[in-house]
Amino acid sequence: LDLIRGKWVVISTDFALKPADFPINRNGSYISNNRFCPFCEGREEHTTPEVAACRAQDSLPNSPGWDIRAVPSKYTAFKLEGQLHSCETGLLKSCSGPGQHEVIIETPCHDQELHQFSDDRMEKILTLIRQRYLQLAEDERIKYIQVYKNRGLFSGASLEHSHSQIIGIPVVPNNTPGLTKYYSENNKCLICSIIEEEKAAKQRIVYESLYFLIICPYASRFSYESWIIPKEHAEHFSDITDAQLKDLAHISIKFLKAMVDSLDNPSYNMGVNNAPVNILYEKGYHWYIEITPRLMVTNGLELATGLYINPAAPELAASIFREAMGL
Amino acid sequence: LDLIRGKWVVISTDFALKPADFPINRNGSYISNNRFCPFCEGREEHTTPEVAACRAQDSLPNSPGWDIRAVPSKYTAFKLEGQLHSCETGLLKSCSGPGQHEVIIETPCHDQELHQFSDDRMEKILTLIRQRYLQLAEDERIKYIQVYKNRGLFSGASLEHSHSQIIGIPVVPNNTPGLTKYYSENNKCLICSIIEEEKAAKQRIVYESLYFLIICPYASRFSYESWIIPKEHAEHFSDITDAQLKDLAHISIKFLKAMVDSLDNPSYNMGVNNAPVNILYEKGYHWYIEITPRLMVTNGLELATGLYINPAAPELAASIFREAMGL
Repeated sequence: LDLIRGKWVVISTDFALKPADFPINRNGSYISNNRFCPFCEGREEHTTPEVAACRAQDSLPNSPGWDIRAVPSKYTAFKLEGQLHSCETGLLKSCSGPGQHEVIIETPCHDQELHQFSDDRMEKILTLIRQRYLQLAEDERIKYIQVYKNRGLFSGASLEHSHSQIIGIPVVPNNTPGLTKYYSENNKCLICSIIEEEKAAKQRIVYESLYFLIICPYASRFSYESWIIPKEHAEHFSDITDAQLKDLAHISIKFLKAMVDSLDNPSYNMGVNNAPVNILYEKGYHWYIEITPRLMVTNGLELATGLYINPAAPELAASIFREAMGL
Repeated sequence: LDLIRGKWVVISTDFALKPADFPINRNGSYISNNRFCPFCEGREEHTTPEVAACRAQDSLPNSPGWDIRAVPSKYTAFKLEGQLHSCETGLLKSCSGPGQHEVIIETPCHDQELHQFSDDRMEKILTLIRQRYLQLAEDERIKYIQVYKNRGLFSGASLEHSHSQIIGIPVVPNNTPGLTKYYSENNKCLICSIIEEEKAAKQRIVYESLYFLIICPYASRFSYESWIIPKEHAEHFSDITDAQLKDLAHISIKFLKAMVDSLDNPSYNMGVNNAPVNILYEKGYHWYIEITPRLMVTNGLELATGLYINPAAPELAASIFREAMGL
């Protein structure tokens, strides 16, 4: 526990990385991740055994013939072993890390990227993620589940092959304190209120479908950041209906194509934010997806203060994305 | 104001950067910053006019003959103009950005880096920063002053030539809520208590001088992160005495040499955290310096949750730094 910032930090003692083990080399450039890829079809023995997959009916687990695979991460700080126990020595507080960290390998093809997927593949990926979310939520030790994606060198991705990650952790990160605060003060959901205001203001809206709204948020931390928000109030990604999931698959591919194109093939992250699980929590959560292009490197001011500086207003970003989508 | 995360975000509308204006290109690599350098001696007309400098007695401002220069940043979201005024439209809250952002050009030589400086140069730099800190604090509109440094491509630095930055902003970032919380609960300073505990535990101490302690902090967000902490309780960097400043100059160069060497010339940031200014604030602040090597890129999990994953325990980092310092 970082007492000063009031946040948990994960110290992954199993790895004990020495200075030479890190991916950025002395010239400030990245060591290529064009190395042997364990995620390609035919190399199933190079990952941990799959926990779920979309694969041909006559194919065996951990063999070729798959469309999408979910495998536990090899490089993780979390293991679903033992109970959560905490340790306190004077000021120093820590706890163990029971949790589950899985990789969703989104395609058997090394060179095919998320924005190039068919709606059908995207629908299958989202369906598998929903299934894994529900599965992880069944373990009482897991208190929060984050779905996320790292794409490109400046996103923190360590492998090129298109993949997402889902992680169940034993603590609630409390990264969105405004949601429960607003609900307790106003007896309504902040995200639902934001949807109303943005629809009235129009200028930060990129796209609206039957079930979702895509906006460039008012207080974007990152230039050309966007959110995909379900219009119907729901706390967890796993609450998504089949019809909503089909809509999300379609609009996210449509939007990502335009985003990747208009930002000239950027590194980016996606994160799906949810309510906690297996714990009593205050009302106010509403799941949504954050898409953050990594066009600049977070600097010393931002690291120290948490105050992000964004040199592209969200209204400009939304207009550029609308144009790229032909709207 | 980001209502969800409860944080201010700076939207720098003056710049309105288009996708092609950002420094990271489509192959995920950085566009070289080995371009024309406005910080080199003889190019003084390419910066804004200096607000302070250490220079030869017979030299004129904004001409050659200087050792260190302080110039307002050309690329900043803050200007010291007008009063702070806020604007509220429904849910959307913003305020204007009166503030001051200055660059400290630490050397006239393009190729000389901070860890290579003499103790004497470092002492002059720290003296100039103290002077600028006191100057910025005189403006009532400034509520918080952050001193920081970006070094290397993965630190967010846009220019290679060695420089630090000092920024006075009109809001308090509240990035260290634990300091005032601990003080109000225990009636003593958290940092002073951490110094005591770390001195007793020993394993995370890198170096101790007469006035400072260098540690790898217990809950390090970044691998091989370190802090330089003044042992005597003080809220602002500007409280530093001449004797302490001399000591800090000496040990920071000594430590940075060892750090840069043992981490194979990494990108890194430094930040000096302080108490607010020109505003009533709760007790508990104690200034300290954070030094964060950038050996990995912050990923989607970290961006979304604020939960950092560090694969090198601080005890390991401290032992490697002690060895590199010949201790």
